[in-house]
Amino acid sequence: MRTTRFGVIGGGAVGGLYGCLLAKAGFDVHFLLRSDAEHVRRHGWKVETPSGDFEIRDVNVHVSADTMPPCDVTIVALKTTQNCMLQDLLPGPTSQGGRVLVLQNGLDVENDAAEIVGAERVMGGCCFLCSNKVGPGHIRHLDHGRILLGDYCHAQEKVSGQLAAVCDDLVQAGIDAKFVADLNAARWKKLIWNIPFNGLSVVLNASTQQLMESQDSYELARSLMIEVYQAANACGSTISEQVIQTTLDVTRDMVPYDSSMRLDYLNQRPMEIEAILGSPIRRAQACGSDMPRVEMLYRELLFLDRKAKRSQAASKDD
Amino acid sequence: MRTTRFGVIGGGAVGGLYGCLLAKAGFDVHFLLRSDAEHVRRHGWKVETPSGDFEIRDVNVHVSADTMPPCDVTIVALKTTQNCMLQDLLPGPTSQGGRVLVLQNGLDVENDAAEIVGAERVMGGCCFLCSNKVGPGHIRHLDHGRILLGDYCHAQEKVSGQLAAVCDDLVQAGIDAKFVADLNAARWKKLIWNIPFNGLSVVLNASTQQLMESQDSYELARSLMIEVYQAANACGSTISEQVIQTTLDVTRDMVPYDSSMRLDYLNQRPMEIEAILGSPIRRAQACGSDMPRVEMLYRELLFLDRKAKRSQAASKDD
Repeated sequence: MRTTRFGVIGGGAVGGLYGCLLAKAGFDVHFLLRSDAEHVRRHGWKVETPSGDFEIRDVNVHVSADTMPPCDVTIVALKTTQNCMLQDLLPGPTSQGGRVLVLQNGLDVENDAAEIVGAERVMGGCCFLCSNKVGPGHIRHLDHGRILLGDYCHAQEKVSGQLAAVCDDLVQAGIDAKFVADLNAARWKKLIWNIPFNGLSVVLNASTQQLMESQDSYELARSLMIEVYQAANACGSTISEQVIQTTLDVTRDMVPYDSSMRLDYLNQRPMEIEAILGSPIRRAQACGSDMPRVEMLYRELLFLDRKAKRSQAASKDD
Repeated sequence: MRTTRFGVIGGGAVGGLYGCLLAKAGFDVHFLLRSDAEHVRRHGWKVETPSGDFEIRDVNVHVSADTMPPCDVTIVALKTTQNCMLQDLLPGPTSQGGRVLVLQNGLDVENDAAEIVGAERVMGGCCFLCSNKVGPGHIRHLDHGRILLGDYCHAQEKVSGQLAAVCDDLVQAGIDAKFVADLNAARWKKLIWNIPFNGLSVVLNASTQQLMESQDSYELARSLMIEVYQAANACGSTISEQVIQTTLDVTRDMVPYDSSMRLDYLNQRPMEIEAILGSPIRRAQACGSDMPRVEMLYRELLFLDRKAKRSQAASKDD
C-alpha cells in the first residue's frame, strides 16, 4: 500500500476514473458516493479505458463525510452546481490538515473550497479528457486524460512541494498529470474549448461533431474562442493565440463526444453555466475585457435552463 | 370601381390582408396565388380583423403571371426566400409601366424587383402588423397594421408623386399607411424588432411572450436591439435611441404572437435569414459597424436551418 490517502468526493466521469486509477495503483482511496454507493459497495467499479479495461473490488465506499478518514488529498469531483454541499463534506476528510484538489470545470471553482479549508491548502486541476459514466459504477474513458495541476495561491512563479508530490502520485498511477505555475492560464485554456462546445451543443442541440462539420457553427465556435483568448490575456493569463487552432484541430480528431453540459441538459440535470460562462464573464469584465458573444451564449443558456426547470416543476405538479 | 388596379403576388398574411382591404374598398385587385388558388376561387377570402370580419367573393385569382392584366401597382408579398421567382412573375403585371410595391421584411429586399423593372419604378413598404394565415383563404389580423412606404430611390429628401398616390389609395382602403422620405430608416426600425424576436424565438424555441417575460432573454433582445440601432445610424439612417425602449414596450403590450420566422421554422419552411439578418450584417460591415451578437444569432440560425433541411432530406429518403 502506498502512503498517500486520497478522498474522492463525487463518483462521476472524473472522480470515478481518477479514483479508480489511484486505487488500481495501490493508493488508499475513499469514495464519497450518493446514487452509486450501494452498487459500488456490492459490485465494485468497472472501468473501460483506451489502454484496457479493469475492475476495482472491495472499494472504500462512504455515503456520509462523517465516516471518511482524514485524507492527505481530498479530490473534489462534484459538479460545481453542488459546491454548496462542500461546507458539509470537506471538514471531515480534511480534518488533519490534508489538502484539497479541485477537479472541476470553469473558473474560480476553487473559491468554495478555499473558504472552507483555507486558500493555502487548495490546489486545482484542469482535466482534458473524454470520459462518461455509462451506468452505476461504470466509467467509460474514451480519449485524452491529461490533468494540469496548479496551486490555488501562486504568487510566485514556482509551485509548492505539496503540489509536486501530488502530481508525482498521479503519475505513479499512470495518469498524465503535469504541474503548472499558473493554474488560471490552464483553466482559461480549457475554457477555450468548454465555452463554445458546451454552450453551443446545448443551444443548437448538436453534438461536438455536428458543430465541427458545419461551417456556420465552426466559425461561431472560433469567434467565441477568440473572445475567451482575448479575455484570458486581458486578465493576465498569457496564452498563445495558437491555442485556438490547436484546440479546433484536437476537437476535429476527437472521438464522437457529447459535452458534459449537453448531457446534463438532455438528462434534466443542472448545467454548470456559472462556472463555465458566468465566472469567466465576470472576471473578464473586472479586467476591462468584453466578451459579447460569450455573454449572449450565457444568456441563451440561462433562458433554456430556467425554461427546463419551469417545465420540470410543471410536470411534477401534474 | 376605383381607378387604380392592384396586383398582389403572394396570398399570405400580408398580401391576403392588404389585398382584401383594397378589394373591399372597391379597387380592382388581382391575386397571384399558389396553394390557395382553388379555394379562394371557389369560396373567396375570409378576413378577421380587430375592427370586424368580412369576406371577399368573386376574387380575381391567377395561378400564372401570364394571365394577370397590366397593373398600376404590383404588390410583392412573397417571402423573400422566393424572390428568385420574381423574374418570372413581375414582367407580366408590370408590362405597361406600372410600379412595384415590395411589402417584405428585411433590408435590401427591393433589389430583386429593381433589377427587373428598374429602380425608379420600385417602392418599398414596411409593415408593422400581427397577422397570420390560419387556413386556406383565411386571414386573421390580430393587432397593429401600419405600413410605412418609401421610394426605393430617394436621393432627395422628398417623396415621389406616385408614392403619395399609392399611399392615398391605401388610406382610402382603411389601411394605416404613411409615406416616409427614408425607406431604409423605416426598414432598420422594423429590424430592431425583427432581428431579436424572429431570431431568438427560433434559437430558444420560445414565443415572443416567453422572451419578454424572462429577464435573460429580455436583456439579450435589448442588447441585440442596441447593435441594430448603432448599425442603422452608422449606415446613415438616423434613428432615435428611444426606438429601442418603445419597441420593447409595444412588444410587451402585443397580443400573444409568434414571429413569422418561428412559424416558418416550426412548419419546416425556409426562414428569411438572409433578408432579416444577413443583409443588415453585410450592410453594417460595409459601413464599418460591427454587430457581434447579431452575427452570432445569424450563424446559429444558419446552423439550425441547414440541420432542419438535412433532416427533411433524410426523412424523404426513408
